[in-house]
Amino acid sequence: MTSQAPFETAEYDRRLVATRRAMAEAGLDVLFVTDPSNIAWLTGYDGWSFYVHQGVILGMEGEPVWWGRYMDMLGGRRTCWMSHENILGYGDHYVQSTERHPMLHLAQELRSRGYGRGRIGVEMENYYYSAKAHSVLSDGLPEASLRDATGLVNWRRLVKSEAEIAFIRKAARISEKVIRTAIDRAAPGVRKSDLVADIMHAGITGVGEDWGDYPAIVPLTPSGLDATAAHLTWNGTPMRKGEATFFELSGCYRRYHAPLCRTVFLGQPTDAMRRTEAAQIEGIAAGLDAARAGNRTCDIFHAFMAVMARHRIERSGRMGYPVGLSYPPDWGERTASIRSEDETVLRPGMVFHFMPALWMEDWGLETTETILIRKDGPAEALCDVERKLFVKG
Amino acid sequence: MTSQAPFETAEYDRRLVATRRAMAEAGLDVLFVTDPSNIAWLTGYDGWSFYVHQGVILGMEGEPVWWGRYMDMLGGRRTCWMSHENILGYGDHYVQSTERHPMLHLAQELRSRGYGRGRIGVEMENYYYSAKAHSVLSDGLPEASLRDATGLVNWRRLVKSEAEIAFIRKAARISEKVIRTAIDRAAPGVRKSDLVADIMHAGITGVGEDWGDYPAIVPLTPSGLDATAAHLTWNGTPMRKGEATFFELSGCYRRYHAPLCRTVFLGQPTDAMRRTEAAQIEGIAAGLDAARAGNRTCDIFHAFMAVMARHRIERSGRMGYPVGLSYPPDWGERTASIRSEDETVLRPGMVFHFMPALWMEDWGLETTETILIRKDGPAEALCDVERKLFVKG
Repeated sequence: MTSQAPFETAEYDRRLVATRRAMAEAGLDVLFVTDPSNIAWLTGYDGWSFYVHQGVILGMEGEPVWWGRYMDMLGGRRTCWMSHENILGYGDHYVQSTERHPMLHLAQELRSRGYGRGRIGVEMENYYYSAKAHSVLSDGLPEASLRDATGLVNWRRLVKSEAEIAFIRKAARISEKVIRTAIDRAAPGVRKSDLVADIMHAGITGVGEDWGDYPAIVPLTPSGLDATAAHLTWNGTPMRKGEATFFELSGCYRRYHAPLCRTVFLGQPTDAMRRTEAAQIEGIAAGLDAARAGNRTCDIFHAFMAVMARHRIERSGRMGYPVGLSYPPDWGERTASIRSEDETVLRPGMVFHFMPALWMEDWGLETTETILIRKDGPAEALCDVERKLFVKG
Repeated sequence: MTSQAPFETAEYDRRLVATRRAMAEAGLDVLFVTDPSNIAWLTGYDGWSFYVHQGVILGMEGEPVWWGRYMDMLGGRRTCWMSHENILGYGDHYVQSTERHPMLHLAQELRSRGYGRGRIGVEMENYYYSAKAHSVLSDGLPEASLRDATGLVNWRRLVKSEAEIAFIRKAARISEKVIRTAIDRAAPGVRKSDLVADIMHAGITGVGEDWGDYPAIVPLTPSGLDATAAHLTWNGTPMRKGEATFFELSGCYRRYHAPLCRTVFLGQPTDAMRRTEAAQIEGIAAGLDAARAGNRTCDIFHAFMAVMARHRIERSGRMGYPVGLSYPPDWGERTASIRSEDETVLRPGMVFHFMPALWMEDWGLETTETILIRKDGPAEALCDVERKLFVKG
């Protein structure tokens, strides 16, 4: 039985080398990785099993070790690139039990591998590493030193390989398809839920040979006043004339994302809306131009904000984050941000969702791009959908 | 602007009373709730914003207080039943920042409300309460006593109100639709991803007026050897003759679930498969009969296992959990389990996903029911789809 892991051995080797270099710099003997995106990036593991405790034990040598629920070992064997002896499971009596926490099993496993007195990196700030998990693991390893390694793997993911960029380009084709589906089907009287059903169908069927995976965030598609709130999901209310609806969507190809947002207005937008639209489009062009290797993430932010200042539009908050491989509940990578105080230096191969949405008092305008930092010149917008407020009479 | 919260005030009052009674028993002054399902159950809040820190501050008196990202306050105002003064936000410079953790803001908020030296319940074992969040909150409240209140709200959710059961029945109608869609469309040569697209479309369009919400778990639809692993998601491989595919799906009505699984075999199943099918169906009937008010969760388990013993089928692990209101990554409520060592007494209004799947060496057979414990008699299976292995020539 061959592994279903999506990349070649050389790609995983590159990832291990980069991660171990960072581990050495941080003075770690071993890393316990719980972020499902980091697990998949290191091992290829892919399954909806992150609702129970699982992770990867990565020492300074040898293969990583996948550790999870016994029942999920079979999924580990089928999707990870490692040999089967490095797929470990704990019994079902540990699952969501108030008596036996899986971290007791992990502590024993780490001790038996010689890390009982080791410097162990853990991802303190992660959805899948609970306060309780940390407490039980700490108690189970009284002589070890548990250190916060949040982001250690995530930062290694920031610059994408050619193989990863190829995946993101496939996701971008699917993103174009879902956004065009949304724009085409939006009309007065259409139930939002029916529109979302069409969007999901378009995304999962994918484009040609490239089938669609589930995006890490469900379609966000609010209309009118709901669109002043950033993260409401859909309901069964029909779309209405005179309302703007924004579509925050992403295609997903084998867990890789290329988020894309566009806004549709049903009816005749006001002059104020048209001015906001024009300013946003001008700002995006300025941002793309500033998104050059050697510049910093904050330069993208300031380039956009300079245009807003000229148009007297107020805006606060960050306007972007790196994207790539992701699992729910977030398709961002949680490292750099496109915001005023972030000085991450841009390098070729970085991919960001540049997201300068404008949430106004009584409507919302989202026009965004997934952008690739190139060796030379401004960033490349990976999706090809016209940048404007889509108006449907 | 009226709130979009799905239930009447009396229903939320009932929930607050039950939760505060449990808080008093646990000796808590205040509870900080992070589980999105618990947040929604108490306040009506509904949005895809749980990827940033948020929660509900529940004291012994007055309205609960929703606390989250500033940007999401608008969503809070639109979906929570509380007055707007009880919707609080923290600034965007706290979001995914390595310098400022949102729990610093929360600590200040709790202090200003007089809980600086209080007994504060926190959900230690939850996806949305990270090890780091707990560490920062603890440091920020040096004179308070933080106590583990995992499950305190979840256990209050175990017995459903009539209003909740009505929602679950709507979800069950959608579950029937998605399972029938899966069975109807399954055929040799059909790409699994295309089938999943149809399943999702059926679920989100819903049934009549009852539009579909996103289930807390994506469709699980593995075939053949992949189906020996419990939690693999789909790919673009065509379905093949001679393979069993199980469909683990749920309709979702306003966040309420009624999971349902059926298995389809393309071609002629072996005699061994037929025997397994017969045993499973007999076991489910025995389980339903044992699922009576006054019995215990383990009685359901043992009733099923007694049938397995007679048919010489081995099985380990739990076979069910309570369901209702849920957000990703899990549609279970993480309280009682249907397993040998769980002695939760069954009461009318409890709803479980009774899930006696049989994962065999080279195939998987999932036939499950969402069941309602009644005042008298055996449990009611809430979905109406024939209980068998579906065979398609």
